[in-house]
Amino acid sequence: MIDLRSDTVTRPTQAMRAAMARAEVGDDVYGEDPTVNALEERVAQMFGHEAALFTPTGSLANVLAVAAVVQPGQEVLCEARAHIARAELGVHGAVSGLTMRTWSHPTGGVDPSVLADLIAPDLGPFFVRTAAVSVENTHNFAGGTVLPIADLRAVRAVADEAGIAVHLDGARIWNAHVATGTPLIEYGGCADVLAVCLSKGLGAPVGSLMVGGADAVAEARVRRKRLGGGMRQAGILAAAGLHALDHHVERLAEDHEHARVLAKACGTDPDRVATNIVTFDHPDAAGVVARAREAGVAVGLVGARTVRLTTHLDLDADQVRRAAGVLARLVG
Amino acid sequence: MIDLRSDTVTRPTQAMRAAMARAEVGDDVYGEDPTVNALEERVAQMFGHEAALFTPTGSLANVLAVAAVVQPGQEVLCEARAHIARAELGVHGAVSGLTMRTWSHPTGGVDPSVLADLIAPDLGPFFVRTAAVSVENTHNFAGGTVLPIADLRAVRAVADEAGIAVHLDGARIWNAHVATGTPLIEYGGCADVLAVCLSKGLGAPVGSLMVGGADAVAEARVRRKRLGGGMRQAGILAAAGLHALDHHVERLAEDHEHARVLAKACGTDPDRVATNIVTFDHPDAAGVVARAREAGVAVGLVGARTVRLTTHLDLDADQVRRAAGVLARLVG
Amino acid sequence: MIDLRSDTVTRPTQAMRAAMARAEVGDDVYGEDPTVNALEERVAQMFGHEAALFTPTGSLANVLAVAAVVQPGQEVLCEARAHIARAELGVHGAVSGLTMRTWSHPTGGVDPSVLADLIAPDLGPFFVRTAAVSVENTHNFAGGTVLPIADLRAVRAVADEAGIAVHLDGARIWNAHVATGTPLIEYGGCADVLAVCLSKGLGAPVGSLMVGGADAVAEARVRRKRLGGGMRQAGILAAAGLHALDHHVERLAEDHEHARVLAKACGTDPDRVATNIVTFDHPDAAGVVARAREAGVAVGLVGARTVRLTTHLDLDADQVRRAAGVLARLVG
Amino acid sequence: MIDLRSDTVTRPTQAMRAAMARAEVGDDVYGEDPTVNALEERVAQMFGHEAALFTPTGSLANVLAVAAVVQPGQEVLCEARAHIARAELGVHGAVSGLTMRTWSHPTGGVDPSVLADLIAPDLGPFFVRTAAVSVENTHNFAGGTVLPIADLRAVRAVADEAGIAVHLDGARIWNAHVATGTPLIEYGGCADVLAVCLSKGLGAPVGSLMVGGADAVAEARVRRKRLGGGMRQAGILAAAGLHALDHHVERLAEDHEHARVLAKACGTDPDRVATNIVTFDHPDAAGVVARAREAGVAVGLVGARTVRLTTHLDLDADQVRRAAGVLARLVG
Repeated sequence: MIDLRSDTVTRPTQAMRAAMARAEVGDDVYGEDPTVNALEERVAQMFGHEAALFTPTGSLANVLAVAAVVQPGQEVLCEARAHIARAELGVHGAVSGLTMRTWSHPTGGVDPSVLADLIAPDLGPFFVRTAAVSVENTHNFAGGTVLPIADLRAVRAVADEAGIAVHLDGARIWNAHVATGTPLIEYGGCADVLAVCLSKGLGAPVGSLMVGGADAVAEARVRRKRLGGGMRQAGILAAAGLHALDHHVERLAEDHEHARVLAKACGTDPDRVATNIVTFDHPDAAGVVARAREAGVAVGLVGARTVRLTTHLDLDADQVRRAAGVLARLVG
Repeated sequence: MIDLRSDTVTRPTQAMRAAMARAEVGDDVYGEDPTVNALEERVAQMFGHEAALFTPTGSLANVLAVAAVVQPGQEVLCEARAHIARAELGVHGAVSGLTMRTWSHPTGGVDPSVLADLIAPDLGPFFVRTAAVSVENTHNFAGGTVLPIADLRAVRAVADEAGIAVHLDGARIWNAHVATGTPLIEYGGCADVLAVCLSKGLGAPVGSLMVGGADAVAEARVRRKRLGGGMRQAGILAAAGLHALDHHVERLAEDHEHARVLAKACGTDPDRVATNIVTFDHPDAAGVVARAREAGVAVGLVGARTVRLTTHLDLDADQVRRAAGVLARLVG
Repeated sequence: MIDLRSDTVTRPTQAMRAAMARAEVGDDVYGEDPTVNALEERVAQMFGHEAALFTPTGSLANVLAVAAVVQPGQEVLCEARAHIARAELGVHGAVSGLTMRTWSHPTGGVDPSVLADLIAPDLGPFFVRTAAVSVENTHNFAGGTVLPIADLRAVRAVADEAGIAVHLDGARIWNAHVATGTPLIEYGGCADVLAVCLSKGLGAPVGSLMVGGADAVAEARVRRKRLGGGMRQAGILAAAGLHALDHHVERLAEDHEHARVLAKACGTDPDRVATNIVTFDHPDAAGVVARAREAGVAVGLVGARTVRLTTHLDLDADQVRRAAGVLARLVG
Repeated sequence: MIDLRSDTVTRPTQAMRAAMARAEVGDDVYGEDPTVNALEERVAQMFGHEAALFTPTGSLANVLAVAAVVQPGQEVLCEARAHIARAELGVHGAVSGLTMRTWSHPTGGVDPSVLADLIAPDLGPFFVRTAAVSVENTHNFAGGTVLPIADLRAVRAVADEAGIAVHLDGARIWNAHVATGTPLIEYGGCADVLAVCLSKGLGAPVGSLMVGGADAVAEARVRRKRLGGGMRQAGILAAAGLHALDHHVERLAEDHEHARVLAKACGTDPDRVATNIVTFDHPDAAGVVARAREAGVAVGLVGARTVRLTTHLDLDADQVRRAAGVLARLVG
């Protein structure tokens, strides 16, 4: 099976396994795991922030990052297909107790004037106040689209004007960085808090980080423990993350090229494919998923009529070529 | 002071006070208050539903109604300025544990195709499923606008197609009914659950109702008790509600006419005033509020640049004329 | 039917109805109801506190009072049959997000050394810290027992030593006051926050108050609104409360005498009846409830084997005598 | 530093690292990690249950296990020093929305008649119903005490009589098993749901499991995802767990022997040391912790006056002897 369902399916390489096997570890609940500490410091620095916190999942990194800037009874604004709104099982309401309002944008981006209109000022204690805006870069359900740094800066400016925080869901920020050449630290400079993920395109088996100010991260450490995310000798996993940062960032360009090949095969304009995700609508999306599977290609269903293909570390050019052949027959 | 801040400021009339004073009562926690029971049955029938539940506030009626059709981890869709999103302190997230996504519409209404696109189908347990759409009629922060019954039926059709519920925030459904002549039962027929309020235009001192199916209301009765809303001899208040239904519905037409007078004075097109609320934008909205207050007219601030005027039972034609004069000088 | 189920079943007297009918009112959400304000000030002063907040129910007053001194992730200690633990549908966990630990005491009281042992010090962010101890006076499910002021002072001393707050569930503090002669202000002086109720022995149809410091009450006002407890012209109800404070406090002695009569009839030692509640265990408690009802006497079931009788304003000596006759036949 | 603070501080052995490095993995969010699946099946079978679910922490396993049998608004009963009550940051209230009541027992055990008295029957929707009793075996804060299988069976009988569930916090059930010879399946047979931990005495770096019926585990899988605990290629960690089950269970007897040596040195009766934990009270517990640390021995503070020593896989006999010497000088 050629697996295009998600870039989360990658298995650690032999070199990554070796790095994990020799990792120096300690009890991270006590803050004593040197490999975790090294990863947290490195990632914080990459984004120009004071601190970072290792988490078992990207969802938890988002929960901690959003809760760091939005209190219960306040709201966060985001695009209507944002991962935090669509794919985290409502945890931001069900656990963090906050609310959301959304705008819709064809590529998952932001129109600054739409954002400005949506922001609710502080009208006293009986209204819900907007505490943060969240943007996702790259945007998963919009098809791996990039939010250009200029647009992110415009978001930052609107947020500053309104006195609200910016949350950046950077699960795939590495893809945006590689696709555009924008330094990671520039993305980091536009956000108060970020979530970044090591187990998607970067190929680590487990792990994400919440990134932000020292106080926010200290509070998030307690909240992580409450939510059952405070692991012990997590350095085993952090070692995979460090290895991924050393070896698996620049090669994302290859995944992006593969995605363009698949897009072409599906009859989608490859110039609309910004990174490693291809989405296309089909009247019988579930049928496409089923028939592709029969033909040895696993693809994802991310909407009633929307099919998603994702390229990643475990796919070589030959597999991409074969998948493209199958998909061309089915939908091309 | 001529009070145009809200239609919640009305004081009970002498006749209403007399009705309260002679109300037959019992312990409503035990379901034994005959006046509460009579009100609940009457309101349920008015909207063609099986049951209703008396609550101390409109917010609680909305909390119970929405929670009846949306579970924690599911979402409700609504317009971006909906009362449930903006003015209930995030209770739907903070207490009910659900999430929201929103669309924006100039008059607080619904474009059926926008709604259809926003609905998230059930894609398995790791996605947030849309469980309900909520509409508000009349729409408070959009300026007392009416959602025409044809539009509500279109919402119902989209909801049925998608297999989701319809919540109607009918805090001011009486105003919509009087403004359009649409029977209340037709509004009720389009919704799975409603919240309706007696202490706004109808002039009761306290009280709203959640309306819906018998099972939903039975569950809401327990949830109401948990939230501290299960009053004892509430028949005193229910009597005011029954009196209001007898005497204060049709007279809302007078409030609507008063609102047109005020709109004209403020330089707003009176044909855009559908019911008893006038909103207008002003670059110095807070200043307008302050200066009007100095001139003996209290008006509301409902956005950074938005002033709201509301007419109600306690305003006679002379007061409206005087307020119009003040406002004409300030903003006309 | 002679109703001994609860002292919540009382109906307002004619004089109380007249007081309600002439009450001066305003919109209490805006803090403008003069009768509510008068009641809040009066009750705050009665207990020697800075402020008080009117609520539609005793449960809500307890929710607000406990949440004022215990944060999510912290705990409150109380007796195992406390009303906050047993009869408020778990709202302190389900809504306020805090936890409880309990001690057991035969009369619902407190052994200071047991309390001291149970208190959890602050051992860092990964442990649950005890933030408050809650006592109930009189104690409902222990049978209307009084917590003597000396015992309450001992609780205060232990709490001060440990640096935690004291919550007093004073739903029936009036009964304790009348039974012992202890001034209300002395009870108030031992607690950081209190909840007191007007709709039990005092005979108001609806209403309780949360009492405490000015900041705590200001926060509770917002929380009350979020939970849907912010009523509009609540002065109608507050007027009943003011009337009850004027006329229905001292007469509780009569209820206490009635309870002793009932206790004797049930074969329970009347000297164990401290106030207006009689509880006794019976192997077929549900059967006793059913047979008493057939004989025209409604009594309560508050445990698998526990029957509860409650006396109140709506029972005269003759009704008590007849109820005693029925109960003597059934269980005496 | 000789580290006696907790058995969570162990570092994986070379053999365990090798097992992790060669683990076959897949995306466990999709249920496709063969090593995770093997571990879940093996642990479920060890305890005679249908299913199990791997979690990043013991706290999360407890959250999922308790939430599987206790709904929001219901309560779980436990001993006053239970880990779920004391050391999980109030997550059962703050996130799961349930409440607790507690009994106190000198060794963390259960008196069946005390338990039976504490259970609250279902008295209708306005009371909190006891849904489960939780026991901890071995009991951490009571000093690693064992709950004998006879006592656990007595708990089961009381629970069955009352129609409530049994939750077993078996974070250290392996120690109880080794200390008593009671088969794991007999413990499992007394519980509806369990939490068991691989990263304490068993020496795995990360990982616990929630164990129970197939439906409960299926629901827990969704709840785990919502709480951000759904890891991807978790087989790396599960491989350590499988290795630990193969190699690190029976050797716990050595830890138990070491604990007796330490107890003797501290002047504590070694016969009161049931497993790998020694606790003793000291008027200056914090001072003991500080002085021991200066002397190269790290010990824990688990109460205002309580010191805890824990033995584990990373301590050899020589280190234990040296630690005993230090502690004998300080407190012996």
